[in-house]
Amino acid sequence: MNIKLLFRLLGILSLLIGLFMLASLIWCNPGIGYHTDNSIVTQRFEWEGFRGLSYSSMICFLIGAVLISLGRGADGKLFRKEAMAVVGLSWLLATFLGALPFVLSGTYRGTSIRTFEKEERVFVIAPGLKIFQTWNEFDVDAEEFKILHELNAAAARGLSANALSTATGLGNSNELFERLASRQPFDQWLIAPGQGEHLAPSDRASNYRMRWVKMNFIDAMFESQSGFSTTGATVLSDLEDPYLVPRSILFWRASSHFLGGLGIIVLFVVLLGQGSAGKALMRTEVPGPTQDTPAARIQHNAWLFASMYVGLNVILAIILLLMGMSPLDAICHAFATMATGGFSTYNASLGHFDSLPGIDGVALEYVVILFMVLAGTNFTLLALCLLGQPLMLLRDIEWRTYLGVILFATTAVVVLGLIFGEFSNFESGIRDGLFQVVSIITTTGYGTDDFDSWNHFSRGLLLLLMFIGGCAGSTGGGMKVIRHVLFVKILSIELEHSFHPKVVQLLRIGGKPVEDDSLRHTILVYFALILFLFVVGFLFVILLEPNDTWAVHTENKLIDSASAVASTLNNIGPGLGTVGATQNYGHFGVVSKSMFIFLMMLGRLEIFPVLVLLVPRFWRDQ
Amino acid sequence: MNIKLLFRLLGILSLLIGLFMLASLIWCNPGIGYHTDNSIVTQRFEWEGFRGLSYSSMICFLIGAVLISLGRGADGKLFRKEAMAVVGLSWLLATFLGALPFVLSGTYRGTSIRTFEKEERVFVIAPGLKIFQTWNEFDVDAEEFKILHELNAAAARGLSANALSTATGLGNSNELFERLASRQPFDQWLIAPGQGEHLAPSDRASNYRMRWVKMNFIDAMFESQSGFSTTGATVLSDLEDPYLVPRSILFWRASSHFLGGLGIIVLFVVLLGQGSAGKALMRTEVPGPTQDTPAARIQHNAWLFASMYVGLNVILAIILLLMGMSPLDAICHAFATMATGGFSTYNASLGHFDSLPGIDGVALEYVVILFMVLAGTNFTLLALCLLGQPLMLLRDIEWRTYLGVILFATTAVVVLGLIFGEFSNFESGIRDGLFQVVSIITTTGYGTDDFDSWNHFSRGLLLLLMFIGGCAGSTGGGMKVIRHVLFVKILSIELEHSFHPKVVQLLRIGGKPVEDDSLRHTILVYFALILFLFVVGFLFVILLEPNDTWAVHTENKLIDSASAVASTLNNIGPGLGTVGATQNYGHFGVVSKSMFIFLMMLGRLEIFPVLVLLVPRFWRDQ
Repeated sequence: MNIKLLFRLLGILSLLIGLFMLASLIWCNPGIGYHTDNSIVTQRFEWEGFRGLSYSSMICFLIGAVLISLGRGADGKLFRKEAMAVVGLSWLLATFLGALPFVLSGTYRGTSIRTFEKEERVFVIAPGLKIFQTWNEFDVDAEEFKILHELNAAAARGLSANALSTATGLGNSNELFERLASRQPFDQWLIAPGQGEHLAPSDRASNYRMRWVKMNFIDAMFESQSGFSTTGATVLSDLEDPYLVPRSILFWRASSHFLGGLGIIVLFVVLLGQGSAGKALMRTEVPGPTQDTPAARIQHNAWLFASMYVGLNVILAIILLLMGMSPLDAICHAFATMATGGFSTYNASLGHFDSLPGIDGVALEYVVILFMVLAGTNFTLLALCLLGQPLMLLRDIEWRTYLGVILFATTAVVVLGLIFGEFSNFESGIRDGLFQVVSIITTTGYGTDDFDSWNHFSRGLLLLLMFIGGCAGSTGGGMKVIRHVLFVKILSIELEHSFHPKVVQLLRIGGKPVEDDSLRHTILVYFALILFLFVVGFLFVILLEPNDTWAVHTENKLIDSASAVASTLNNIGPGLGTVGATQNYGHFGVVSKSMFIFLMMLGRLEIFPVLVLLVPRFWRDQ
Repeated sequence: MNIKLLFRLLGILSLLIGLFMLASLIWCNPGIGYHTDNSIVTQRFEWEGFRGLSYSSMICFLIGAVLISLGRGADGKLFRKEAMAVVGLSWLLATFLGALPFVLSGTYRGTSIRTFEKEERVFVIAPGLKIFQTWNEFDVDAEEFKILHELNAAAARGLSANALSTATGLGNSNELFERLASRQPFDQWLIAPGQGEHLAPSDRASNYRMRWVKMNFIDAMFESQSGFSTTGATVLSDLEDPYLVPRSILFWRASSHFLGGLGIIVLFVVLLGQGSAGKALMRTEVPGPTQDTPAARIQHNAWLFASMYVGLNVILAIILLLMGMSPLDAICHAFATMATGGFSTYNASLGHFDSLPGIDGVALEYVVILFMVLAGTNFTLLALCLLGQPLMLLRDIEWRTYLGVILFATTAVVVLGLIFGEFSNFESGIRDGLFQVVSIITTTGYGTDDFDSWNHFSRGLLLLLMFIGGCAGSTGGGMKVIRHVLFVKILSIELEHSFHPKVVQLLRIGGKPVEDDSLRHTILVYFALILFLFVVGFLFVILLEPNDTWAVHTENKLIDSASAVASTLNNIGPGLGTVGATQNYGHFGVVSKSMFIFLMMLGRLEIFPVLVLLVPRFWRDQ
């Protein structure tokens, strides 16, 4: 194993990540990091974000310096096995480092208590601790439950004495609060007016409040992996309260999308031109079934990919700025769109802009749709297009299929949605349907409408679309369109082979036979691995995640778990039901979260570089 | 195409099926066809069954005679393509002929009206007509709904005036009934006491009743295909009323399991010794990835398989008789067990015997478990075992895995079931858990307990077990254990290949490398096809089956549809939710039913011989 080069590359990665963290620091300044939505403001320097990011970047620099000094004198050769180890370990390190700012800034994840009013009024306490009980088992009476329920709904700001009385309709609400706050375990979770949190901003100091839970290390790893893998699944319940999630942390979260969409190895090759090592690395990281290419071309391709990527990010950010977004929101959404990530800076995702004055929500959605489609397109083809060969795209069977699937799925969703009355009219149907289909197939995962409340066919279709993904050579995740094209071709060849066993059929793409005759096998193996991982992940979640995570809708456990596994494995973000468009992954247990972290990494690196790290023989043999 | 041989073989098949129908006729005699349960009796000759079966057998003989005369002078050669056509068309013809007795006897499928009381009291009318409405939309008031609901629950026997008043708690129930019966559409579905059906047996002539729906042709095709493919999924709601389903029809239904488990082609080869044609045919029909074998050996194998199969059927039938079953029940359950079919003669499947006097329900279950395990075992190995090489079974990796999966899944289901309190004690947990796991993995589909009410992990696990199936060379359906063994081996070889690309790893079974080097590819293709068919079938059902089929539990549409597709494709029978252990497929629409018929046939014939019939090129080329 060329261990020195490994150290050197990991060291460079640490330094790079540290630099990006430093860059996020500027958003701690209240004069810069404002949201497009005027109602979200802070007047103060965000010390929590500053602390988290500056400590984290120092750790990155320290680790980077140590690793680089250990890697001094490395030569530039990498065998395939070493390349896989470098890629797998780079992403592991990035995930770990990327998690630090969340933990060190003390970012808050969600409420300490979850309440539900449907059916038998289930009452679930302290998701972090996983003590699930129904409210009457917990010795809480109906009136006290109302208090908890309203405080829960009021998020971290809480309610004034008057507001609490009005919301609950109870005259003695203060009294009830005091009674609850004096009892275990509620004494830990309730905050009376004026009482001390280390942080009691003026907009809530005099309110009755419920304490929120900070991200633990697994939460932070989840968020970091979700960022780097461009999944966009989150554990954060409220992005819009700067006291819970500092804006600089929001920016760091979006930056991880930017880095992840580019790809760590592409970065290495662009910056260092690793020669044959770069070639070995690129083959391992760049999405899609790749053909053999000379090393010089690899570096050229990396440069092309990186410049297209950065260029599109800049263009989109400028357009969003011009459309009325604040710099913070414009850059974050450009990063999330072009990386096909999906982290937004608002709870309602892109849907938030629908109701903001001064922004044309409809135009914004169509702009984002266009850029999502571009982000899911092969960047090499896109470059050729820009260089005056616009027909290259239409001549490409993968891109034609990609567009065809989008159009077909949108038609189905819109027609069904109109029949079931989910869309008020044709125009809004087209907009919401197209947005959601593009968002899922490109694996971005933005939402403008709660597609989980759509009819079951549309839900099922979107679930299956998760497995399609973008084009090879794009930033889109998932299985990639070309694999599906080849998959269907292989099956039809096999079907013919079954009755014409002596006729040798060649696999053709766009009329030309595929040179690499192992490709047929490779495609099937990839589908087999995805199937295998999906089934194992599904069994894992339904066994180890308690039913109480679903609280009132345990009957949805099987389908929701399947969607959560599909969504993380394919780097989408949202799934169905408890991980639906309006929900998040915060309430899952640490074991499931750890598995989702693993699945996101498997999906982003197309399985092999991650899975081999678990094979003892990989480490043993020379 | 050797069209003459095709005609000849199809003709012989028709004659054979006709003979089996004739054999079923003897159960029309009330003195012979009695049930083990004394409460189920008829005193009369069952003319409906007699009519259905005798007409059907005449049609079979007619078609058979025409086909055989068309096939005169056929020679015995078959190319692979022709063999596939023979197998596919034989099964199509068998399904068609097997459906005739159900239609011609006028067998009743289910009630004309479905009512539900949960939640918003949905009221669904006439499933055959698919007019779904809630009860208030249908202009039925709450009291009238009660009448309908109680009559619905009373099955075809109906309720006397007193019983109706007691059940509904309404004094004026007769009046309400008259009011309903005079209105459209209820005039078609309600029968007043003494009023004329052509058939009004003494046990119900004076009752208020709801009319039942007869099987239409698609229902009958479903039931027939389910029998021949040894799936055991049914559209019949009540098997225990001899006026709805004659006992001779129940016997014909079980006979289709017997024929299907044996396999039509095995029958051909045994009876006719088709030489090289037989070889081509056997390769196409016998389950599992087969090795190349000389023609003489093929006939020997067919004989061995057939005699083991018939022998085990006889032994099991005798044991069941000795344990106290009536001849009808003993033979039907022997057929259903050894064919891994699952058609029972009782609504509660094998669970019915738990509460019958004079029968040891526990011992019966263990006997059936043992024979299900045997039915899922490779018959060649079983024969070697009986010939004094008992260790052959343990040395076989497929059988070891088969047993291992059964033990592992049973342990998981029992432990979870005890934790969730679904099993009252360890002993009943082992019994129910083992029974259900064996029933699913062997693809039999019997039930003793409603596994759909178990915890979600157990439900999900059983859903996945559906894809495993029995051993190759057994009567068990599904994907077969050996394919999974090879699948996992192939994936682990591929994983190692990814970092050691130059090391050639051989696929080994039991230490010996597999000779046929295309097997690796074939296994992956098979998984890919199952995956493809599963996804297409799932999309089909969720799109074309209306939500109203789920009435009150539409949220389960996705998972239930997935289970229905998995269950029919793998020839199991029951699935989850609306097709769960206590439910049936009767309420699905004709489009979905047609697709399930297709899926069952695809599953039984391992895809290719059925799918190629749909390829235009298959028919065009010479």
